[in-house]
Amino acid sequence: MKVGVFDSGVGGLSVVKSLVKHKLFEEIIYYGDTARVPYGIKDKNVIIRYSLEALEFFKNFDIDIMIAACNTVSAHAIEELRANAPFSVVGVIEPGVVALTNKIEKKDANILILGTKATVNSRKYELLLKQKEYSNINSIATGLFVPIVEEGIFNGEVLDTTMEHYFKDINPHNVDSVILGCTHFPLIENEIQNYFKNAKTIHSGEAIVEYLRANFNCDKSFEETKVTYFASENPDGLKEVAKNWLQDIKEENK
Amino acid sequence: MKVGVFDSGVGGLSVVKSLVKHKLFEEIIYYGDTARVPYGIKDKNVIIRYSLEALEFFKNFDIDIMIAACNTVSAHAIEELRANAPFSVVGVIEPGVVALTNKIEKKDANILILGTKATVNSRKYELLLKQKEYSNINSIATGLFVPIVEEGIFNGEVLDTTMEHYFKDINPHNVDSVILGCTHFPLIENEIQNYFKNAKTIHSGEAIVEYLRANFNCDKSFEETKVTYFASENPDGLKEVAKNWLQDIKEENK
Repeated sequence: MKVGVFDSGVGGLSVVKSLVKHKLFEEIIYYGDTARVPYGIKDKNVIIRYSLEALEFFKNFDIDIMIAACNTVSAHAIEELRANAPFSVVGVIEPGVVALTNKIEKKDANILILGTKATVNSRKYELLLKQKEYSNINSIATGLFVPIVEEGIFNGEVLDTTMEHYFKDINPHNVDSVILGCTHFPLIENEIQNYFKNAKTIHSGEAIVEYLRANFNCDKSFEETKVTYFASENPDGLKEVAKNWLQDIKEENK
Repeated sequence: MKVGVFDSGVGGLSVVKSLVKHKLFEEIIYYGDTARVPYGIKDKNVIIRYSLEALEFFKNFDIDIMIAACNTVSAHAIEELRANAPFSVVGVIEPGVVALTNKIEKKDANILILGTKATVNSRKYELLLKQKEYSNINSIATGLFVPIVEEGIFNGEVLDTTMEHYFKDINPHNVDSVILGCTHFPLIENEIQNYFKNAKTIHSGEAIVEYLRANFNCDKSFEETKVTYFASENPDGLKEVAKNWLQDIKEENK
């Protein structure tokens, strides 16, 4: 099976990492819209327009599934992508909600959603969780986490004070689950987990692996996944980040 | 006189603020490419392409001067803009350097350039300063200052630790001048000035006012400046920021 993975930039590589780690696909075509990143601060109509352009890109390849490996795209453009795609389109929000329901049984558990401004404003996670009857949901737009990760900062003082800034009104011990509602956030998962010690974190990449196994014919395990990277700007930069982010699983899989 | 002011987003409003404060123009047309902001993390060829598109936009108006009120554009696309424009094009880097030479006489003064990754990598400030025989120049890409300002954070812990992160290898008392090489940075000028107590700061907006007075027929003082705002996305959002940023000078000018 061949899959197309779309993200506004490099963030979706955290999803690629999960797909490669679990050997779900024979081939992955990755497309990052690095010329127009970030999407998380942009308006719905712009996000839809850019996503449909990415869809046109993927029509050049014989893919079985397109993954919108970006919470902002999943929050705002998934219906439009589905309406125009000749293949299945999977976002990261539904899989994230399913993963949460598998991990958290108590309907009154304290759930904290972190995401970009665009994702949080869409209230998509909230809506789906309320449909599943979860009642204690809190959302925070932690937009600065994106440029912090892009600067290569994964821990230390800058991240610590930024967390304190965003989480100052929350008792960290009372949070039962944190949804990492942006594909950049798994890169700082350890720090978020340290802050919310009792919380189960929801990781878009791991969630989508579960979801694909349950809903698509994705239970085979391929020896190796061939990944081809495309970017609307500076593909070499994207490949460099991919090399760094995927390094440890390549070593694990050896 | 009528001027076009171009920026990748809202940052150039700090330049508009100086132009309005000093009553330099009768009319300002502002265009922010908010759909594709930020430019500072992007490649030279992309910055040139987007800047030339902005130039086409300004050709629809009968302007006398186009101001590239963005250090990243000034660093990478000013020659291309000049080669294609039917009007004068002024960037913020040359005016910044002229302002510095007016404030700092000692050629061995310690000069610190702050900017986006793209601006710092261009080495444009450095080159022009070396032509003027300044010898002690240090540049730091302080990219996180941009999203921090865009989040509406102008002081406090997040900014303090981010400054310490970027400036950890610098003795703040030894810095004689700080070039605020990004139009977002004047919004945190007080904090930067507090950090580098002995330094004279160079502000793109104030620098360009001096430069226009010296080089163009801009010595008239207009009663009022009419500003019209355009944006490639969410013009209402831009107008809202403009209202906040320009509020105090409107009150001053009353």
